[in-house]
Amino acid sequence: MEHSQIEIIRSESKKQKPQTNQLEFGRIFTNHMFIMDYSVDKGWHHPRITPYQPVSLDPAAMIFHYGQTVFEGLKAYRTKEDKILLFRPEKNMERLNLSNERICIPHIDEEFVLEALKQLISLEKDWVPSAEGTSLYIRPFIISTEPYLGVAASKTYRLMIILSPVGSYYKEGINPVRIYVERNYVRAVAGGTGKAKTAGNYAASLKAQEESEKIGYSQVLWLDGVEKRYIEEVGSMNIFFKINGEIVTPVLNGSILPGVTRDSVIQLLKHWGVPVSERRISIDEIYESYQKGWVEEIFGTGTAAVISPVGELNYEGEKLVINNGETGPIAKKLYETITNIQNGTEPDPFDWTIEVN
Amino acid sequence: MEHSQIEIIRSESKKQKPQTNQLEFGRIFTNHMFIMDYSVDKGWHHPRITPYQPVSLDPAAMIFHYGQTVFEGLKAYRTKEDKILLFRPEKNMERLNLSNERICIPHIDEEFVLEALKQLISLEKDWVPSAEGTSLYIRPFIISTEPYLGVAASKTYRLMIILSPVGSYYKEGINPVRIYVERNYVRAVAGGTGKAKTAGNYAASLKAQEESEKIGYSQVLWLDGVEKRYIEEVGSMNIFFKINGEIVTPVLNGSILPGVTRDSVIQLLKHWGVPVSERRISIDEIYESYQKGWVEEIFGTGTAAVISPVGELNYEGEKLVINNGETGPIAKKLYETITNIQNGTEPDPFDWTIEVN
Ligand SMILES: Cc1ncc(COP(=O)(O)O)c(C=O)c1O
Ligand SMILES: Cc1ncc(COP(=O)(O)O)c(C=O)c1O
Repeated sequence: MEHSQIEIIRSESKKQKPQTNQLEFGRIFTNHMFIMDYSVDKGWHHPRITPYQPVSLDPAAMIFHYGQTVFEGLKAYRTKEDKILLFRPEKNMERLNLSNERICIPHIDEEFVLEALKQLISLEKDWVPSAEGTSLYIRPFIISTEPYLGVAASKTYRLMIILSPVGSYYKEGINPVRIYVERNYVRAVAGGTGKAKTAGNYAASLKAQEESEKIGYSQVLWLDGVEKRYIEEVGSMNIFFKINGEIVTPVLNGSILPGVTRDSVIQLLKHWGVPVSERRISIDEIYESYQKGWVEEIFGTGTAAVISPVGELNYEGEKLVINNGETGPIAKKLYETITNIQNGTEPDPFDWTIEVN
Repeated sequence: MEHSQIEIIRSESKKQKPQTNQLEFGRIFTNHMFIMDYSVDKGWHHPRITPYQPVSLDPAAMIFHYGQTVFEGLKAYRTKEDKILLFRPEKNMERLNLSNERICIPHIDEEFVLEALKQLISLEKDWVPSAEGTSLYIRPFIISTEPYLGVAASKTYRLMIILSPVGSYYKEGINPVRIYVERNYVRAVAGGTGKAKTAGNYAASLKAQEESEKIGYSQVLWLDGVEKRYIEEVGSMNIFFKINGEIVTPVLNGSILPGVTRDSVIQLLKHWGVPVSERRISIDEIYESYQKGWVEEIFGTGTAAVISPVGELNYEGEKLVINNGETGPIAKKLYETITNIQNGTEPDPFDWTIEVN
């Protein structure tokens, strides 16, 4: 498909833009969205930018029953010079196809969808906020639309991209969060859908999250589904530990989401000459290292929060306080470097950012 | 809520009813549906029967992103005397709430929703087909509707009930199906969502199903997610084995869906004095029993197919042929008894059926 084929239907009503200092996460959407449909005969077709509008589906549409759906999350940033930058968007397109593969959704043309995404953002560029910590969150997603009550892959799909100007994801901002080590519920297991960005993984996580919130924790730390021993990730972040000088993060094992921020953090650490390794990490290792005073920092990584320092880990009722509950130097340096690259205020040695014209 | 509160908006257009001998599964829907909404202040409110109509949702509606949804499946049957019977519908209402519990969806008033379901069927009673093997499939489901891109439980929901006149679920009809023992993919794991009837479980199952279909198997037999050794269930059926005179089925362990048909089969077998036990069953046990010539029958149980004999099990490339690939006597007797109770042609010793007026 040529990107010139994208039909543009402009919105008549112009929504009021929110105050930049009142931005929440994911509650306000821009005037336009991108839509593209799939059918068996036509493949992906009819790409269009339209006014932001409701989706109308048959109540038997398979998305409502069998959850065949995938999504992505990335951001656009405004630089001091009023340029609009995307951060490694090709990685999100690639991951969207990896998710499609697992969930039996037809592959997209990654370059074409990226081009469509850029056109949409270009049209909505006034919605990219400029205050520190703000950005335009981009949500591409694909839903199965065939009206059929049988467990099988749908024959029709719709891809949409919606945009939301956002502030910080956690109400704590970049302040340390408290995390509960989950031993009861499981998010994902080897052979399951953990490495795909698909709705069911998040539905599965709600119960544990609600229970941990009741006792004052903002997220849970997931352990593997088989032995409930090896660390996987946090709600919507990958996780890193600094133990006795070395930075470690769980190796991608098929049940962990391969985060773009995770990958960027690893590359940056290597670039800085900081030792970092991807390997299996058991919760016992963390506990024992903590007893020895070796756990220097813990932080989560993800598009929404960028870097989120962990100030406390609750492990079977015991509170492990990390770095006195404060943001550690590595988390701080990573946060600053990544956000500076994203905002164009620091050189971009890896060519991670792409400008939207 | 009083059931007199249900508002009824009748459909103007009357769809053509399908030929009874051409009925597929889950492709045609009746003229009306039931709808009820939930909000935090009002709870479940505004129950109504309306024309069958599209659902219009904000593209940010949480169902599209985080998969917070549950569903049920049951059937209405027409007797020779033109009565309409439901089969143990209170069990489905109970299971809907068990699913709600796991997926953090607010509980429904089981009696009220059952009453609403009966009113809907009463209005659509002409759609309940009478030919052998046909019925009116009933699909209650709840979706999360809040437009919010954050991983949390939705604050608004919609419950809907749609109806579809159906023929047999498998194209094989009641003929034996061939099943592939899955060692690679996992459907559910202890601590996960396997016991809930929620969309993500089915999305997770598609890949394995597609791969097994390519090599000629209609369904996969799932093993447990931890050891990949203990038998769980089939795509949308529970599973029973007759080994050396005894009937066994996997015990409900939290990752298996507690099937209504499964429960009915166990009660019937006990009633007949046939030994039946619920316990852990490893695939190795089945394999060894097969070698000894002890595996007399295998059959699946579920609302869609009632009883589905298994004629062949593919275990790591080896084809275990069960009962010469034919329907065994227990499967046959169970099928006949249950369908006769459902159609009102045999006494109903357990008071399983409820008449819709
Ligand atoms: C389950 C999960 N893990 C990790 C991440 C972090 O991935 P990324 O850095 O690409 O945002 C996310 C968020 O996208 C997520 O949903
Ligand atoms: C995963 C799964 N297992 C088992 C069953 C059988 O349950 P029931 O007998 O209640 O239809 C179903 C179908 O509802 C199912 O989806």
